[in-house]
Amino acid sequence: MPNAPCPLQLRPVLIIGGTHGNERTGPWIIGRCKADPLLLGPAAPPVDHVIGNPAAVARNRRYLERDLNRCFTPELLEDPTDSSVEVRRARTLLERLGPAGAEPHQLVIDLHTTTASMGACLVLGGRRPTDLALAACAQQQCGLPIYIYESDPCETGFLVNGWPCAVTIEVGPVAQGIVDPLVAEQTLETLRVVLACATSIANGSRKAPERVLVHGHITGLDLPKDAQGNPIASIHPERARRDWQAIGPGAPLFLGADDVVYRYSGAEVVYPVFINEAAYGEKGIAMNLARRETLTIQPEWLDAVRKLMLQGA
Amino acid sequence: MPNAPCPLQLRPVLIIGGTHGNERTGPWIIGRCKADPLLLGPAAPPVDHVIGNPAAVARNRRYLERDLNRCFTPELLEDPTDSSVEVRRARTLLERLGPAGAEPHQLVIDLHTTTASMGACLVLGGRRPTDLALAACAQQQCGLPIYIYESDPCETGFLVNGWPCAVTIEVGPVAQGIVDPLVAEQTLETLRVVLACATSIANGSRKAPERVLVHGHITGLDLPKDAQGNPIASIHPERARRDWQAIGPGAPLFLGADDVVYRYSGAEVVYPVFINEAAYGEKGIAMNLARRETLTIQPEWLDAVRKLMLQGA
Repeated sequence: MPNAPCPLQLRPVLIIGGTHGNERTGPWIIGRCKADPLLLGPAAPPVDHVIGNPAAVARNRRYLERDLNRCFTPELLEDPTDSSVEVRRARTLLERLGPAGAEPHQLVIDLHTTTASMGACLVLGGRRPTDLALAACAQQQCGLPIYIYESDPCETGFLVNGWPCAVTIEVGPVAQGIVDPLVAEQTLETLRVVLACATSIANGSRKAPERVLVHGHITGLDLPKDAQGNPIASIHPERARRDWQAIGPGAPLFLGADDVVYRYSGAEVVYPVFINEAAYGEKGIAMNLARRETLTIQPEWLDAVRKLMLQGA
Repeated sequence: MPNAPCPLQLRPVLIIGGTHGNERTGPWIIGRCKADPLLLGPAAPPVDHVIGNPAAVARNRRYLERDLNRCFTPELLEDPTDSSVEVRRARTLLERLGPAGAEPHQLVIDLHTTTASMGACLVLGGRRPTDLALAACAQQQCGLPIYIYESDPCETGFLVNGWPCAVTIEVGPVAQGIVDPLVAEQTLETLRVVLACATSIANGSRKAPERVLVHGHITGLDLPKDAQGNPIASIHPERARRDWQAIGPGAPLFLGADDVVYRYSGAEVVYPVFINEAAYGEKGIAMNLARRETLTIQPEWLDAVRKLMLQGA
């Protein structure tokens, strides 16, 4: 009689909340999971948790000196003259919990919320095969929309880029500074799905999905502004709270204080997302535009995730 | 043949937006009305506008040093040692635009938003007959709920108390720091209703409503907290986004991180409002409880408003 198969030893997945200090849902979820690890579902791999930016969480602010979720660029991490709170925190997180850190992690899930009506979705920091494979499995399981925040020279250095496989869970709308229990439950359910996918990839029970539908970032759009930089328009009522809904040439984007309608002048059908994200005001982004694409998943992409998940692989 | 009746000379109503600098809707409405005064409706009296806390609006913060909407107490206004930005601003507003100011106003409408799901409602700073009369007419016209924020020793000094007749228009939910065009439209429509009521009271065409339904403030409730003051519970899912909905003994209020349910222990049926207002976190208020009451309107209360509205009365 053969020996029973040796149970797989899975590396712990790192769950991060509070990367933005005024998004309270992530830290709340982490607190709940500490009290009851079974909340993460029967198929969850082992997990560790960390608060991304505890100094900002304590002040209920997005960040103290700069956005931690834009600090993970080689330029900032290796700049000896930058000693801002968040760049130092990014270095500490990588030294302690990064892929080559003192307590190494290979797979990260970063919990975020938005004031935009995005529902629950996954955000990737690029087109890494590992991230696409994990996200594709989650989409296969429950239809989650996927946004790839890529190719924007002003928006780089996402935390997820610091680990070899990582996704951001983004849920909205919820105001900054509060925990809405319904948004928290959406976040927790999405976290359960992603964790269950990680387990099924690691134990080989997951067949690679053939395709994944993604929304690739094209550009951010700012509100129309006057010469002093003050907004002279709002989001148009037809765009309000309608993230992920396709628009074509001539679609209204903004409504001027003087009732002028500013329209989309492109020729391509695009998908607005992060409409009215409050934290993007200071970045000059009133909404982002994305292009819908179907990508083919290569089976070996799942193997790459599997290797990251397995001890000694 | 008698002379045609002399047209009434109405005093301008003062509209204030940006009393809280991160509530962007009020300033946005004021900007729209400057561009097109007809937006306020055909029955609007003459109006003036002012930004309540321009320094806070410029920083997209609720306030710089203290909440301007708690500064209108005699103690603060008359304290020579208090030179905070907001107390100085309160003095300036009264000296310039107060009832005995350089450009006097008798009736004020203060535009606010909340992250709570309050819909559009009116908030009064007490039970002044003039405020109740104006609010009752608005309720008669479109059913607006009315909240009286009264008798709370920690929450006094509302801006509206600085003028002899004043109401706050409060609309939510909307996140801080953004203009949602649908919330802006709700605010504008409510403003039109209140202004039309003021005109109809002033010109004598309004008969006093017999009754007004109000929600009188009882108390604020804080989230359950640990010994270090950190929240250990969220709003309960059954309370989330359900402002104005009656609850009775045993109703769930909060959900602990450990799944403990904290319940309402009072015997009286009450109405939670300002559930999950983000700005109240620092005040230790997760929701307020109110008591529903029907008050009788005295016809002379409308006369008092009418006198305030008429030049030379």
